[in-house]
Amino acid sequence: MFVQHPIAVLDSGVGGLTVVKEVMRQLPREKIIYFGDTARTPYGPRTPQEVMGFTREIVSYLIQYQPKMIVIACNTATAVAMSDIRSSVDIPVVGVINPGARAAIGRTSTGCVGVIGTEGTIRSEAYEIALRELSPHVQVISQACPRFVPLVERGNFRSRETYDTVRDAIGHMKRYPIDCLILGCTHYPYLTDAISEVMGGEVALISSAEETAREVSAILQDKRELARSNQLPVHQFFCSGEPCMFRLIANQWLGEQIELTPVVWQVPTIG
Amino acid sequence: MFVQHPIAVLDSGVGGLTVVKEVMRQLPREKIIYFGDTARTPYGPRTPQEVMGFTREIVSYLIQYQPKMIVIACNTATAVAMSDIRSSVDIPVVGVINPGARAAIGRTSTGCVGVIGTEGTIRSEAYEIALRELSPHVQVISQACPRFVPLVERGNFRSRETYDTVRDAIGHMKRYPIDCLILGCTHYPYLTDAISEVMGGEVALISSAEETAREVSAILQDKRELARSNQLPVHQFFCSGEPCMFRLIANQWLGEQIELTPVVWQVPTIG
Repeated sequence: MFVQHPIAVLDSGVGGLTVVKEVMRQLPREKIIYFGDTARTPYGPRTPQEVMGFTREIVSYLIQYQPKMIVIACNTATAVAMSDIRSSVDIPVVGVINPGARAAIGRTSTGCVGVIGTEGTIRSEAYEIALRELSPHVQVISQACPRFVPLVERGNFRSRETYDTVRDAIGHMKRYPIDCLILGCTHYPYLTDAISEVMGGEVALISSAEETAREVSAILQDKRELARSNQLPVHQFFCSGEPCMFRLIANQWLGEQIELTPVVWQVPTIG
Repeated sequence: MFVQHPIAVLDSGVGGLTVVKEVMRQLPREKIIYFGDTARTPYGPRTPQEVMGFTREIVSYLIQYQPKMIVIACNTATAVAMSDIRSSVDIPVVGVINPGARAAIGRTSTGCVGVIGTEGTIRSEAYEIALRELSPHVQVISQACPRFVPLVERGNFRSRETYDTVRDAIGHMKRYPIDCLILGCTHYPYLTDAISEVMGGEVALISSAEETAREVSAILQDKRELARSNQLPVHQFFCSGEPCMFRLIANQWLGEQIELTPVVWQVPTIG
């Protein structure tokens, strides 16, 4: 396999751009292709069958670009489809759940880790399984927070309503000796201020983006597949929905003009 | 390969026990075999040929225990022998340099990273190469600190002499916009107080132990080779020199009684 092959990153929408930004920062030589399934976002409330079907479809689309790795930058898709995708392709597949779990195990002193995420992610118990696979005696306190994504999508990051919603949803977690809280949804880092105020400054908030990028770097280096070129790579972005908003958010978030291709699925599967 | 195979960790002496402790904490199911080459420590001032020979010899010794991974927990040995060992065995080999470099790239905002280590490590430019492999434009300021290991080995962690020695050695690095300093020798974390005072609290000190253990975890999980047993593993330790001091330090550092086997090389190669 040649090292100029890209890293493919997929997400239900724009949340996975946090992972892209970290990969760009930590591995500036690597070319990235990104697929945001904005026509069908959010995945959180969908059935596992739907999420599985959508994820497979996106992987089939991205695989034609011969990526050297697939990054599932969506917690819900990782929870539901990671092992299926892993066994269907012969390149490494990195999700956002194992890196987040590993970071929490590396950081906790109390051995009690909190996890918040969408209903799909929490229902799957994927974080619990990942945490216990690493460390059998870790205590895991999980909470689905279905009201957080709508708040973020309305840009409502620091209002009184946001603080009240966050307190209602996770205030009870303070009863446990949690010293690490995994933000198990790529939207949640926007609510860091409110979450931190509710949980207290001594609780470390773990966002998967940085950890996932570091794991991408470690695995590519272990496989000797890091890109070698000194030329700046040109990344490519695809989205299944309306492109203007995606372009706006991506340009703003990544600090550069992106090359975006809207994708129209041949067989419409929009639920 | 079966998952009950151990992780082999090797070091010139006791410094690599910091990596062992982190692997035990982050991956409590994993069995570890450790080799401390206490008869020939320290490796820092030795020639590359000597370090290469010693490392090969230890790997040949450990390989009879059928490890699933080799961790070179010594900066000097990693700098000199890592790629040679990698191409001589068919299991993953993890050194301490790539994880430390990756952590620095993940954390720096100024793009200027400091590295301190033994003469052997700094002379090899291994950190510089690893940092640039990840990120071509990072600025690297390196400094060999040959007087640090003797201070640590005398248990002289916080004396006036220690502060003066540290200031003499690395005070000049303050002239650069370094925001991460890699402690490129497993002895240096003992001098954290003095190093931090000289560099200033805003400079993050990066010790490889935690980062290396996290990388061991990521690579084993990616290869689906994490241990599954819920039984507490029994680790095994080997040292080439006088066993009493090794046992004392290891018991104290790891907080448990270790199982130690002194090893007498059949062909004496003590320099």
